[in-house]
Amino acid sequence: MPGLVVTGAEVVPVAVKDPPLLNASGCHEPFQLRSIIRVRTADGIVGISEAYGDDRTLELLNRVAAVLPGLDAFDLNGLTRRVVEAVGTQTVPMFTELIGPASLQKTVALAVGAFEVAFFDAQGKALGRPVADLLGGAVRDRVDFSAYLFYKWAEHPDGTAAFEPDEWGAALDPDGIVAQARTMVDRYGFGSLKLKGGVFAPQEEVEAVRALRKAFPDRPVRLDPNANWSPEVAARVAAELEGELEYLEDPTPGIPGMAQVAAGTSLPLATNMCVVCFADLPEAVRLGAVQVVLSDHHFWGGLRACQRLAGICETFGLGLSMHSNTHLGVSLAAMVHVAAATPNLTYALDTHVPWKTEEVIRPGALAFRDGAIGVPTGPGLGVEIDEDALAALHEQYVRCGIRGRDDATHMRRVDPSFTGARPRFA
Amino acid sequence: MPGLVVTGAEVVPVAVKDPPLLNASGCHEPFQLRSIIRVRTADGIVGISEAYGDDRTLELLNRVAAVLPGLDAFDLNGLTRRVVEAVGTQTVPMFTELIGPASLQKTVALAVGAFEVAFFDAQGKALGRPVADLLGGAVRDRVDFSAYLFYKWAEHPDGTAAFEPDEWGAALDPDGIVAQARTMVDRYGFGSLKLKGGVFAPQEEVEAVRALRKAFPDRPVRLDPNANWSPEVAARVAAELEGELEYLEDPTPGIPGMAQVAAGTSLPLATNMCVVCFADLPEAVRLGAVQVVLSDHHFWGGLRACQRLAGICETFGLGLSMHSNTHLGVSLAAMVHVAAATPNLTYALDTHVPWKTEEVIRPGALAFRDGAIGVPTGPGLGVEIDEDALAALHEQYVRCGIRGRDDATHMRRVDPSFTGARPRFA
Repeated sequence: MPGLVVTGAEVVPVAVKDPPLLNASGCHEPFQLRSIIRVRTADGIVGISEAYGDDRTLELLNRVAAVLPGLDAFDLNGLTRRVVEAVGTQTVPMFTELIGPASLQKTVALAVGAFEVAFFDAQGKALGRPVADLLGGAVRDRVDFSAYLFYKWAEHPDGTAAFEPDEWGAALDPDGIVAQARTMVDRYGFGSLKLKGGVFAPQEEVEAVRALRKAFPDRPVRLDPNANWSPEVAARVAAELEGELEYLEDPTPGIPGMAQVAAGTSLPLATNMCVVCFADLPEAVRLGAVQVVLSDHHFWGGLRACQRLAGICETFGLGLSMHSNTHLGVSLAAMVHVAAATPNLTYALDTHVPWKTEEVIRPGALAFRDGAIGVPTGPGLGVEIDEDALAALHEQYVRCGIRGRDDATHMRRVDPSFTGARPRFA
Repeated sequence: MPGLVVTGAEVVPVAVKDPPLLNASGCHEPFQLRSIIRVRTADGIVGISEAYGDDRTLELLNRVAAVLPGLDAFDLNGLTRRVVEAVGTQTVPMFTELIGPASLQKTVALAVGAFEVAFFDAQGKALGRPVADLLGGAVRDRVDFSAYLFYKWAEHPDGTAAFEPDEWGAALDPDGIVAQARTMVDRYGFGSLKLKGGVFAPQEEVEAVRALRKAFPDRPVRLDPNANWSPEVAARVAAELEGELEYLEDPTPGIPGMAQVAAGTSLPLATNMCVVCFADLPEAVRLGAVQVVLSDHHFWGGLRACQRLAGICETFGLGLSMHSNTHLGVSLAAMVHVAAATPNLTYALDTHVPWKTEEVIRPGALAFRDGAIGVPTGPGLGVEIDEDALAALHEQYVRCGIRGRDDATHMRRVDPSFTGARPRFA
């Protein structure tokens, strides 16, 4: 086996077109930012990964990239140690404000997660084995995903760069959501549906859920209002949808609020907002605040951290699902590998794939069939960077001018009164 | 990288001489039973492991060994799956009665742990890397152990096979324990001391602790009465030793009893008796029953399971140490690798090494210096079976007639009234 001594790491920011998807924070801007990471080793193996692409993340990742040379790509504990040293006392807020205030633990997790995936890819390439093998072996050869439905406008608001309307059109009521679901199910075969809520009055979203259940009686439905309801509103909606949802995701902000709602409903409550790092788990367990945790290797600290979380969920009787931000194929591959190797990750995963019209990996490696993606069996993550695509998306990053994520400002171009303060529906 | 398809596995029971060590269960018999496991792969790589050697364990391990051919030695999840199938609904009580009644989870953990170590050894040999690398990388190059002090007789009781007296002599009072500690520290350099208690009246053991602290003022001392005290006695002893122990291990039986003692003392309570599988953790965490968990790959389910436990301990603010039964060098190597790769395993580990006069691995790989063992850097576990020694210890197993562990019967040869019922001191 060759040595796997890291000689260098680079972080390339990219911008990908994104439709005007509505959510509790506002509206997706015309571009979402990601970064592609490449870790080079002495013997020429290159491990790849994908992370957020906002300025603060990029600064952090570049700071860490500089201290990686000399590290063995098998030394994941060494990676954590170097990240801890590079971070020092400087916390970095996450690209996604959904996971709350910055902390040292979250900052370290962000950077470790970003590079650890590249380390695993390099390990797998060196060994001629898929990453799932290095995580204990795939327990399934296909990983199920859920149709991620969004309220949306037909076009981005004026005042931003001119965009052709996307192919999806508007979805602003139950009929629009059902039509969107129909297209998505037809194209990808998804076996479950997730509606991003927190956008309209709760009763409208209840109606959308019911319309989905009527149109797709065999498909479990999830609703995620991104903590945009007060505990009282959340309790009322939960009572109304009792027995109708696979789970209700982050109906209200904070662990105590979630505990209050959980105490009054048989609906499982899921979260990727109030339990987002290991430090959140003791209180959540103590209060019985959530029944399902959505993992995400980007902010939990990598693939091993997701498995550690899985072990905690199994031990404490919590369900396990997976969160998605807008992402490209490198992250999708990482999600598939860790999901495949995690026995108790039994819920279909979230993904923004249907909303993407641009990609950075070469086509063919990750194809949906019946709502699932086959686990790549080639070495490492099993995906390769398309250099032309990467160059074009980096060029798009340079040109687009967006350097962070700001759904609220974009929303205010249409609704000047929008604040994004949660819970909006009290 | 070559394939690592398992072609067969064998389990060889061995018996090793053991001195008459006293404990809450009685007295160690003249022989302790272990088994050496070899997992063979298609390309000739052989992974080794070590497990208990009692009849019930052997039956279980042989049943599992029969279903392993065809499995990839990287497929640890597949190993668990095959073990689950092989176990069915048939629980197997553990060799060590200290960990309580049999359960399916414990039975599966026992078998997975036994073979998983051999799988890791095979992986490491195939990759030319130490097992610690496969567990995330060593965070320390040496692993500290603690001097494991026992009350003991000078000789095994009559009525068993004739034995020459061991070289340690009797240790039946504070002076005897201090002398034993002096020899052990001189020979191995241990930086901390653990007294196996629960043998004599609690006040005598308090005096032994005080004598150790006086003789070795720089060395932390632990006391482990193996749940042989009632909660009331435990609380009284804890009050008396406040501030004098690194931790007090299993003073009393059961999680509720431990919680009762913990509530009244600032001494950290440790356990390898009331929290012995993942199912025990929720109640222990909820009640704040223990502050330190002693892991043990033999009964927690292997090296990955120990790391899962480590993640839980870190998340829920519990300390982590490591338990030892009588063991040989293969298990010692596994303990060293997983300890080296577990950042929050900061307590010195238990080991029975000083009590052993027989070994199954070739000498030189694992040497104590200043109470610590250097982490092997060769492929796999970094230890090799001495075939002549294995044959001799297997022959000794065949001849010795012991087929389980029964400290109580051995004790009754001297004290016919001994029952082994805990807590003895109420």
